[in-house]
Amino acid sequence: MSDSLNFNLACPLPLQHYPNILLAHGGGGKLMHQLIDQVFLASFGDAPLSAQHDSAVLPIGKARLAFTTDSYVVRPIFFPGGNIGSLAVHGTVNDLAMSGARPVYLSAGFILEEGLLVETLWRVVQSMQQAAAAARVQIVTGDTKVVDKGKGDQLYINTAGIGLVEHALNISPRSVREKDVILLSGDVGRHGMAVMAVREGLEFETTIKSDSASVAGLVEKLILGGIEVHCLRDTTRGGLATTLNEIAQSSGLGIQIEEARVPVREDVQAACEILGFDPLYVACEGRFVAFVPLDQAEQALEILRRHPLGENAARIGEVVLGPQGMVKMKSRIAASRILDMLSGEQLPRIC
Amino acid sequence: MSDSLNFNLACPLPLQHYPNILLAHGGGGKLMHQLIDQVFLASFGDAPLSAQHDSAVLPIGKARLAFTTDSYVVRPIFFPGGNIGSLAVHGTVNDLAMSGARPVYLSAGFILEEGLLVETLWRVVQSMQQAAAAARVQIVTGDTKVVDKGKGDQLYINTAGIGLVEHALNISPRSVREKDVILLSGDVGRHGMAVMAVREGLEFETTIKSDSASVAGLVEKLILGGIEVHCLRDTTRGGLATTLNEIAQSSGLGIQIEEARVPVREDVQAACEILGFDPLYVACEGRFVAFVPLDQAEQALEILRRHPLGENAARIGEVVLGPQGMVKMKSRIAASRILDMLSGEQLPRIC
Repeated sequence: MSDSLNFNLACPLPLQHYPNILLAHGGGGKLMHQLIDQVFLASFGDAPLSAQHDSAVLPIGKARLAFTTDSYVVRPIFFPGGNIGSLAVHGTVNDLAMSGARPVYLSAGFILEEGLLVETLWRVVQSMQQAAAAARVQIVTGDTKVVDKGKGDQLYINTAGIGLVEHALNISPRSVREKDVILLSGDVGRHGMAVMAVREGLEFETTIKSDSASVAGLVEKLILGGIEVHCLRDTTRGGLATTLNEIAQSSGLGIQIEEARVPVREDVQAACEILGFDPLYVACEGRFVAFVPLDQAEQALEILRRHPLGENAARIGEVVLGPQGMVKMKSRIAASRILDMLSGEQLPRIC
Repeated sequence: MSDSLNFNLACPLPLQHYPNILLAHGGGGKLMHQLIDQVFLASFGDAPLSAQHDSAVLPIGKARLAFTTDSYVVRPIFFPGGNIGSLAVHGTVNDLAMSGARPVYLSAGFILEEGLLVETLWRVVQSMQQAAAAARVQIVTGDTKVVDKGKGDQLYINTAGIGLVEHALNISPRSVREKDVILLSGDVGRHGMAVMAVREGLEFETTIKSDSASVAGLVEKLILGGIEVHCLRDTTRGGLATTLNEIAQSSGLGIQIEEARVPVREDVQAACEILGFDPLYVACEGRFVAFVPLDQAEQALEILRRHPLGENAARIGEVVLGPQGMVKMKSRIAASRILDMLSGEQLPRIC
């Protein structure tokens, strides 16, 4: 501990409940939100972070820059449909796209565990490069650290991304309005189940492949198509249910969706049932929700469906005045229930 | 492994020699440079990365943006003079400053080990915030991941930074010229020995405190003072000797320094002797070398010495035509010897 720094400020987290970090603190759900609010925002708490969006949008001269970061700790590092390298590109590119930015530059920081096969690193780095080229971003700066054997898990990757906001829209939970229509860009739950199946050594009739992909091109189509997009958010950690809860809370409005309208592939549904997961809480890495004005909803849906990554896009619900901060779902049997944020951790280390 | 990606390209590293990652691959020396050249540059190899500078300098509209990243894995996480949090701010701010940029924004990505005390995290985050405020940068975006107990080491932090280049200088190894004077901003070796002493439980007569600090203000003074700075580089992993070798190689010129002119504190020298280290290879986190034109050298030195972080600044050598890519040192006994780049690893995980 430094003697030159002042640690008089007491940690504001309710330490009597959670004195130690749990896996759930990284799971995207309630505990992670508590940690972010009470440790990170309490310390760094400035405007961009407080907006609680996937990227910070920052003024640089006359330009608006989006800036975001994510670390990737997925286990195992190779899974059907991708690996930690392609994921580290897609995840960060998508976070930029979610603020309506065109992704331009990435950084890449590697934490390698002593003993990692150089061949494995090479394969990961190659697929990062392929994913970056496909998403039309450049990896322009990097760093490598090595930790002792047993102090890592093969490799962890951090990517930070810079994007340019080249339109006048303010894409943010704060722009969400009553009666906005909620579009979902495709079927949910594939990434989480793809990782889980290989981790648990499960074999299904078909191999579930991750949906990991850059959705920046799809977002660009919406914006260039003249859709007045109010908010975008990718349905990653905590899945669709958690994403919708975040937006309901940040916007101070309510959300109403219909379960039957949320596309879930049969194999994903079956795998979820076997493993006891709800697909609405399972992470995707190439799906997002778009909040658009009612009168542009059909046009936006059409734009999404014309793109290969949006062909299963669906209109899943709408924004209502209340109850504020809550997500309600009409279930398949037409009952209405509250769809809460993920609490605890159901799928550790899927990204 | 993804079936949609193509891994036909063979890994170009000489696998027969190093099929596995060693700690030395992160040590800043020859093996790390091989890994960067043969894996990262071979894959991502575009202009900004290939410049092999601490930051990439990128055009954004009419502005020039510096962008950099570093992960921090220092062990132990608290040491005299700082901790992993303040270090994660200083290191990245300094990398921006080394391209002559004014640091503006930081991201912060945390990889937490399950079981970490939340109180520990709080102390680290508080000192990040204090370091950021002192360096006048804003932490604007972040991410938290949690890995299973035994798959990390309390916590790792990645910071990426954005800075603005607000002058016309091109501060880079490529701007180094014959007869440039090499200034060193202060005494070397303190950070590495401070970490090492606490790690090994060594007690010296005085506690060696890390030199970890933001040098952005000091660099700003040089530039605002009208010094036509050719190159800057902080003497981090691999220490002063490795830094000078990097610049000699990137510039294609030779470097000549005098050992007696390199300031090393007595306690650091003593600790190095006990532990068998050469202070010229020990990392600093608040020191840099500046390559400046001969006719501005005295003026630049004066500017450095007027600043608290530069009061021990010294003129340590000059740039010569050859031998190309080599650093020669006149030792204390007036013998001339080659000062090679660090090979292998002498101080793992000091940053």
